[in-house]
Amino acid sequence: MTRTTLTDLDEVQLLDTTLRDGEQMPGVSLTPGEKVDVARELDAAGVHLIEAGSACTSEGEREAIRRVAGEGLDATVTSFARGVKRDVDHALDCGVDGVNLVVPASDKHVETKVGSTRDEVVETTVELVEYAKDHGLWVEVLGEDGSRADLDYLDRLLGAGLDAGADRICYCDTVGAADPERTAAVVSRLAALGPTSLHTHDDLGFGLANVHAGLKAGADTVHGTVLGVGERAGNVALEEVAIALGESYGVDTVELDRLYRLCRTVSEATGVALPPNKAVCGANAFAHESGIHTDGTLKDGTMYEPYPPETVGRERRLVLGKHAGRAGVKAALAEHDVAVDDDELREVVARVKELGERGKRVTDADLLAVADDVRGRERERHVELVDLSATSGGNLPTASVRLRVGDEERVAAGTGAGPVDAGLEAVRAALAGDEGGRGGGDGERGSGSAEREAGSDGVAFDLDSYHVDAITGGTDAVVTVEVDLSRGDRSVSVSASDADITRASVVGMVDGLDRLLAAEADAADAEPGAVADD
Amino acid sequence: MTRTTLTDLDEVQLLDTTLRDGEQMPGVSLTPGEKVDVARELDAAGVHLIEAGSACTSEGEREAIRRVAGEGLDATVTSFARGVKRDVDHALDCGVDGVNLVVPASDKHVETKVGSTRDEVVETTVELVEYAKDHGLWVEVLGEDGSRADLDYLDRLLGAGLDAGADRICYCDTVGAADPERTAAVVSRLAALGPTSLHTHDDLGFGLANVHAGLKAGADTVHGTVLGVGERAGNVALEEVAIALGESYGVDTVELDRLYRLCRTVSEATGVALPPNKAVCGANAFAHESGIHTDGTLKDGTMYEPYPPETVGRERRLVLGKHAGRAGVKAALAEHDVAVDDDELREVVARVKELGERGKRVTDADLLAVADDVRGRERERHVELVDLSATSGGNLPTASVRLRVGDEERVAAGTGAGPVDAGLEAVRAALAGDEGGRGGGDGERGSGSAEREAGSDGVAFDLDSYHVDAITGGTDAVVTVEVDLSRGDRSVSVSASDADITRASVVGMVDGLDRLLAAEADAADAEPGAVADD
Repeated sequence: MTRTTLTDLDEVQLLDTTLRDGEQMPGVSLTPGEKVDVARELDAAGVHLIEAGSACTSEGEREAIRRVAGEGLDATVTSFARGVKRDVDHALDCGVDGVNLVVPASDKHVETKVGSTRDEVVETTVELVEYAKDHGLWVEVLGEDGSRADLDYLDRLLGAGLDAGADRICYCDTVGAADPERTAAVVSRLAALGPTSLHTHDDLGFGLANVHAGLKAGADTVHGTVLGVGERAGNVALEEVAIALGESYGVDTVELDRLYRLCRTVSEATGVALPPNKAVCGANAFAHESGIHTDGTLKDGTMYEPYPPETVGRERRLVLGKHAGRAGVKAALAEHDVAVDDDELREVVARVKELGERGKRVTDADLLAVADDVRGRERERHVELVDLSATSGGNLPTASVRLRVGDEERVAAGTGAGPVDAGLEAVRAALAGDEGGRGGGDGERGSGSAEREAGSDGVAFDLDSYHVDAITGGTDAVVTVEVDLSRGDRSVSVSASDADITRASVVGMVDGLDRLLAAEADAADAEPGAVADD
Repeated sequence: MTRTTLTDLDEVQLLDTTLRDGEQMPGVSLTPGEKVDVARELDAAGVHLIEAGSACTSEGEREAIRRVAGEGLDATVTSFARGVKRDVDHALDCGVDGVNLVVPASDKHVETKVGSTRDEVVETTVELVEYAKDHGLWVEVLGEDGSRADLDYLDRLLGAGLDAGADRICYCDTVGAADPERTAAVVSRLAALGPTSLHTHDDLGFGLANVHAGLKAGADTVHGTVLGVGERAGNVALEEVAIALGESYGVDTVELDRLYRLCRTVSEATGVALPPNKAVCGANAFAHESGIHTDGTLKDGTMYEPYPPETVGRERRLVLGKHAGRAGVKAALAEHDVAVDDDELREVVARVKELGERGKRVTDADLLAVADDVRGRERERHVELVDLSATSGGNLPTASVRLRVGDEERVAAGTGAGPVDAGLEAVRAALAGDEGGRGGGDGERGSGSAEREAGSDGVAFDLDSYHVDAITGGTDAVVTVEVDLSRGDRSVSVSASDADITRASVVGMVDGLDRLLAAEADAADAEPGAVADD
């Protein structure tokens, strides 16, 4: 069964265990509704098997599994079950298509954990496989801690499972202790017995290396979790298995162009953030900052990318920082309709790098401020924060702002869910036309009221995203707020830092809005075709 | 040179490029001081080579490299240099021990990116190697995009480098496009020419698999970055290379028990969060929540861990949630000196699971509240927040609190860096004895003042950690604040959620303190030996 190359394989089946092994990650808990959302995305991506949970856990868990099983998905829906009849009954009660029956395989697990003997475990396994098959279930037998098991016993245990009618056996590197050589040695024996799947963990970073070794050794199905969520260092990441097999060997697994969407769904459901530097799903996976890389990427997309971002449903992104080069800065300025000559460009690049060296992420607003300054343009503020006050802690968080809008001063107050939200409401109220702030007066979610001169124009904007990085290091830590604002087709990114989160947030919003208004005024003044393209 | 097993290797040298390739990660920028801090940690861990930066980038970058080179580290300190004389001169100017000279190797890079020819690149490479060697530098020649290069040309290019005196050549999978088979094929040819290092990226998740394949093919040095920071999906993670080689093959690299410390240092310097489910450094890498896992781990530490946490300088952690089992809950209660009988334990477990199912991370405070309730103990508050008001946005964030402390009401105000910090000061002021709040009156960082009855006792506590997860999803998102408080030997974890960050923070602190005081009161009442141990 051993394969010299994976390119001979047409397809590898994926079993997703995000909803079971993934959910065992400390701090992660999915409601039945969230499980259904994730299962639908998995199914839409073409995942072959979905382990929806562990039916023995609780009635709430069974309810979730029942709902997933009742969705009418194309995927085979299974429940995890320990080697006890009660667990199989619970699974049956949930209406699943199959069970992932886990039985102890290593002596450590057989003896210390369940206080049993090898013979007893084999006997129970045979009984349970027969029982599950008799009840019409698809059955996979997992030898827990199999990578550390005595291999003769592992053969005997899983072979007995197959003889009893199991559809598949699973090589489990339960604690992520195996290396590729051990994986190959164990899997080649199991694959000689029957259809074999791989269940790997990433404690040594070998999760995917072991999948690779296991498939070469004859396995044909891979267990994984989206984002690699799971206990300890997590399971092998399903999206990495899919892209690695697809790009490297042309092996079909799931719809690759749904992977990013799937990752975001799981991130939202679990609360596990997407690490910026993670394959497929990281914010930076297709972002380019360094000068040489950006230059190369602008010349040829494949220069610094192994595969196009569209493959996994994403887009390329250029960002600016200390490694900025001429090509990247010029491209970014052009996005904001700002044309500079060669001397100006050189100076803008130098200043952007300087900002980057101070540890600052260079946002659109930073770049535009630098460009104004270099071009000797008077920085005329369209909107400016003159004063801000926010009260929180009690029942009705309230904020007031004094803004200078053009030549006019506007004062307004707003309420919100917290001081930042109230600040946003106050800004909106100050900027609104005659119609008042969003939700003004209904008291439901926050409202604002403003005093201003008669005839003031309303200035609407969308807050497309509001993000604060995790705060650690104490209550006096400087907080950096990043906001994306838009008006019509224009959008701008801004960041603001302050130990006062209310101040940082409102300053960021007002600065971003100011940039949008400035760009509109420039566009209105400019002749068509005024943007240089040298 | 090809090795059938890695266990024959005694040692693999690690070249850390966190300060160069890692720093090219979008949004990351290290000051010279931060670079020195990271370099010292790397050196203390025994990293063999430290690529301190790219001297051509800017004067600020050269200053940073100069400082690292001037630290007198045991490690060989190098600078990255492109294949131009100016870059080598810049490196020399920084006083480094060596250069990592990168020259284009694939036709895509030779022709499209630098607009040169194969012959020209070989000629320049030879000149620059000779130049650098003449100036006393250690020289490694990196063939950029080598994994996608024509292999005859790659041999010719890097072979010419070695002939010109280079100390080492490097296999670069610049865009993370190679699979283990390709890596083995290329590296076995290079290793036949001379000492070869591996530079791998993780775009397909194959970073470590390729290191494994490359070492088997004859390489003996590995490039990596701490946490795998770097462009796109990042470089292979240095800590994973070290633990995988050490645990799986007994190969020496660096001091493993300094890895966690090193990861934290880099996380703090770069601002890149430690993903919870990451090998070696993740918060969950040695945490256990699920019932069966916790039970097994309590019986035998190696049951669900591939290696003890102490190996990398960490400790095991048990956490509670929806998968909680009897053993884990009992152990957690015992840590807080709470004894329950079997019936009570069953009920506490059920309630903890219920909390977990609602998506809640179960903190110490949650567990203790459940235990009180199950044991029918009247919940007598030692400290309670009656009223809170905070003002922020202006120059002097201020907060006031009304606390009930025992039978007494205390009112105090405080100022701080922001509303949360002011809230903490106000709480401290209300609780303080005659000495007033921390820093009271000096105006430097925040101060508090309190009105209270004469003779009130001071209640001191330490805020050991204050953490807010990243906030996304809008200004009205519910914010969850996690705090760890301690008094003397006792510590407690608490979380509180509210759309108002000020309120969530102060409520969390007061609830945590209340728990600490309750535990003290219980301990004072209890007879020695009263804790059950059935």
